[in-house]
Amino acid sequence: MDDPAVGGGMSLDQSAGTAPAAMDATEVDRVCRAAADAAPDLDAMGRTARAALLTALGQALEADRTAIVALADRETSLGATRLGNELTRTRLQLELFAEVLTEGSYLEATIDHRADTPIGPRPDLRRMLVPIGPVAVFGASNFPLAFSVPGGDTASALAAGCPVVVKAHPAHPATSARCFQAMHEAVRERGAPPAALALVHGREAGQAVVQHPAITAVGFTGSTAGGRALFDLACARPVPIPFYGELGSVNPLIVTASAATERGAEIAAGLTASMTLGTGQFCTKPGLLFVPDTGDGDLLVDELRRAITAAAAGPMLTADIHAAYQRGLDAWRHSDGVSAVAEGGVDGPGGALLARPALFSVDAGALTPDVLEERFGPAALVVRYRDSDELAAGLARLGGQLTVSVHCAETDQALLTHLHTMLRTIAGRIVFNGYPTGVAVTWAQHHGGPYPATTSAPHTSVGATSIRRWLRPVVYQDAPAALLPVELAEGKASIPRRVDGDLVVPIR
Amino acid sequence: MDDPAVGGGMSLDQSAGTAPAAMDATEVDRVCRAAADAAPDLDAMGRTARAALLTALGQALEADRTAIVALADRETSLGATRLGNELTRTRLQLELFAEVLTEGSYLEATIDHRADTPIGPRPDLRRMLVPIGPVAVFGASNFPLAFSVPGGDTASALAAGCPVVVKAHPAHPATSARCFQAMHEAVRERGAPPAALALVHGREAGQAVVQHPAITAVGFTGSTAGGRALFDLACARPVPIPFYGELGSVNPLIVTASAATERGAEIAAGLTASMTLGTGQFCTKPGLLFVPDTGDGDLLVDELRRAITAAAAGPMLTADIHAAYQRGLDAWRHSDGVSAVAEGGVDGPGGALLARPALFSVDAGALTPDVLEERFGPAALVVRYRDSDELAAGLARLGGQLTVSVHCAETDQALLTHLHTMLRTIAGRIVFNGYPTGVAVTWAQHHGGPYPATTSAPHTSVGATSIRRWLRPVVYQDAPAALLPVELAEGKASIPRRVDGDLVVPIR
Repeated sequence: MDDPAVGGGMSLDQSAGTAPAAMDATEVDRVCRAAADAAPDLDAMGRTARAALLTALGQALEADRTAIVALADRETSLGATRLGNELTRTRLQLELFAEVLTEGSYLEATIDHRADTPIGPRPDLRRMLVPIGPVAVFGASNFPLAFSVPGGDTASALAAGCPVVVKAHPAHPATSARCFQAMHEAVRERGAPPAALALVHGREAGQAVVQHPAITAVGFTGSTAGGRALFDLACARPVPIPFYGELGSVNPLIVTASAATERGAEIAAGLTASMTLGTGQFCTKPGLLFVPDTGDGDLLVDELRRAITAAAAGPMLTADIHAAYQRGLDAWRHSDGVSAVAEGGVDGPGGALLARPALFSVDAGALTPDVLEERFGPAALVVRYRDSDELAAGLARLGGQLTVSVHCAETDQALLTHLHTMLRTIAGRIVFNGYPTGVAVTWAQHHGGPYPATTSAPHTSVGATSIRRWLRPVVYQDAPAALLPVELAEGKASIPRRVDGDLVVPIR
Repeated sequence: MDDPAVGGGMSLDQSAGTAPAAMDATEVDRVCRAAADAAPDLDAMGRTARAALLTALGQALEADRTAIVALADRETSLGATRLGNELTRTRLQLELFAEVLTEGSYLEATIDHRADTPIGPRPDLRRMLVPIGPVAVFGASNFPLAFSVPGGDTASALAAGCPVVVKAHPAHPATSARCFQAMHEAVRERGAPPAALALVHGREAGQAVVQHPAITAVGFTGSTAGGRALFDLACARPVPIPFYGELGSVNPLIVTASAATERGAEIAAGLTASMTLGTGQFCTKPGLLFVPDTGDGDLLVDELRRAITAAAAGPMLTADIHAAYQRGLDAWRHSDGVSAVAEGGVDGPGGALLARPALFSVDAGALTPDVLEERFGPAALVVRYRDSDELAAGLARLGGQLTVSVHCAETDQALLTHLHTMLRTIAGRIVFNGYPTGVAVTWAQHHGGPYPATTSAPHTSVGATSIRRWLRPVVYQDAPAALLPVELAEGKASIPRRVDGDLVVPIR
């Protein structure tokens, strides 16, 4: 999600009262060292106690729901309904990770007994995943409750057994502090080490956390520029660490000629709703719409024009984000080959931060890198294509994407087969006859993709497998039974394990 | 494995005949583009055909065994027995990956059916891992047949469905070319795209491959300096890519006071064999020996002195490696607090590249970063420690390690429990009452560790799970049945899958 305010100074115009003070280097050092000291104890709690901790964190947020949602709405203008759903989503996410811990296959427990091989005897080897160590999490501007102090990164890292140092996003410091307070109390009450969850404010503090020797991995959701700068810091450390950043994505959406004919008006309505949802401030907002250069394609664009023109303006998260949105629209206005299609209403609650929905159009042959940049907000670019070759050529110009969507008809099988490899290569999620906004938290979910969608294509920031980011393997060779973790002990196990090559799943 | 020649220019002194010409930028570009073009076809072959390809690669190497081993021995002086075993190991590794493909759980296939949730309906989501794209593999000096053109990186990447561009190590260019020829013929014969396996020579060519836009990940085994330089290149790309590098490790080995008393002489003999094996040119060579400052510890060091003094000198791989070994010993000779314990025989086959085994000693309290640097070759540093606190403090000074070994007695349970977290934090493999050299290729094996042991602690370069490095997840949302990969189709599957949260394993 492209948010130019990430990593910026404290943005006070939207805050509720005094912003928490930025943390200085000494304090950051203390917090990170304390996180390192807490790591063995958090790990030693074991899966059952950590599952209970996650459930308790969800309950703590629920118990403070009214105040948290009100505060978040005051700081972000995202609305009580959306924020209430966001809190519910985060509670469900914490519960999913409790289930992941109980189920246990995330440990990838594997046992190879001593054996003879053609090149000599082989020792007893027992492998499992262990926590990587203290983790830094950067809160996002647009998800104060689902990708910030509470949210997927924090939930998955604590589940893995990693202490978390959260860098609060300056767009909602008070919400961050309030959520932290509720969660930190739960951490203490469940007997977890208090330093297992910490909060820092301030841009320099965030950079210092990424560079601190005690930190072993980073989770980030924000802009391409801000994320890349932190990624570069993480890579340049004397001891480089994994940086799991979700940066920018334009989320191309393709309408086939047959789909435009079959249900162009329906697609135009769905698209308008998806691109203006939350004032377009979603990392999965469809921002690039491939529409066929046909009569029915023209009709679809006409429907889009009507819908966008009728759409209400909405408030943006911060003044920086609002300014960047206006700059983005201006860039389209002054780009060769790009023409304005529609602009939405000027009224709505949001004052100076009000953003009007906007739609532009360009021919597929005229696509340039500048034109393809993400516009964070309720705007999209229609790309008119003449045939499947021009469509494929347009897709080939794109960087990595979180999602790609296809609206198609039953008769499009050959086209889909033709495009399949391309779709899979550029994006982490392929949506059929739907819209990319809305990311369900499930076992199968994947929220990631090649750069710049993320800085680590092999991993996800949403879904059960996002825990894998915070784990590293360890193998025990000929270990005394008394020293083995319970998950690697001889005999029947309560978790799925691979034993001498065979996957053994306990009856649940 | 710390090898100062990695990334260096062609080293001709050990080569058999004319070295292949370094590849220029135009040729590198052609090879990388061809690899990208080959990627969809290699993927489309499917698991069964790729499993057959891997088996065929092993057979092709077997068919040329005599010539390959002779050539490798001429270039590396590693000896026909060791090289023969290395070839067998690689064939077994290729066969293990054929099994991994057939078994199929590496795909992490996951299906969540459409469902209602407290925050609305959830779409049908089907996730699996897909090939990441063309991969660069850097051959290692010390494993011409197991970490070079043939070997774990190439086998796991081809298994994943990723074309491989190998950068030949300058220490054995003719062996690399010969192996490539045999394997490339098998690639053609099995109907795989010919560009699925390519070979480049030359330092600049290697850098150009890492920086080429078509390359999506890198596997590397070599020195800390050379590996870090390439890691930095991979991170600095406009589109950064994962760099899976195995760099340096001193592989600490701890002898407890009780173990020294129980079987000091036996441990001294085992240690000498392990540290001089292959003239000490193993990434897992035990290079740092924590010995108790007790009478029995003195006796153990006396035994080591006798054994090392009696050990034969051996040939090193290249002149650069030989020179670096001599520099490393000189550095110990001139380090405060370090004293020479023993030096081995001067005779042996190896001429100018002969290296004498050597043992030095230092008190745990006098450890400095310089003293702790890896010496690639048949040398080790004894660290005398007074108590468990001094032992723990010494371990805490170390960077990440591939392995840590503990020689202990039954009475050491309390000490082991005390050290357990530390052992797990610093190393990827914990060896009990054994030696770290020799890395079995199995399902449970892990060959990795925190930096500088590797540049990516969450992943391994040996064992079945090393395939995970070359894969990224993709999720299909509400996909038409006809477009879904067979592994995600509705109904019974021939591979393990997670369906609506439950792991379902087919009967094999």
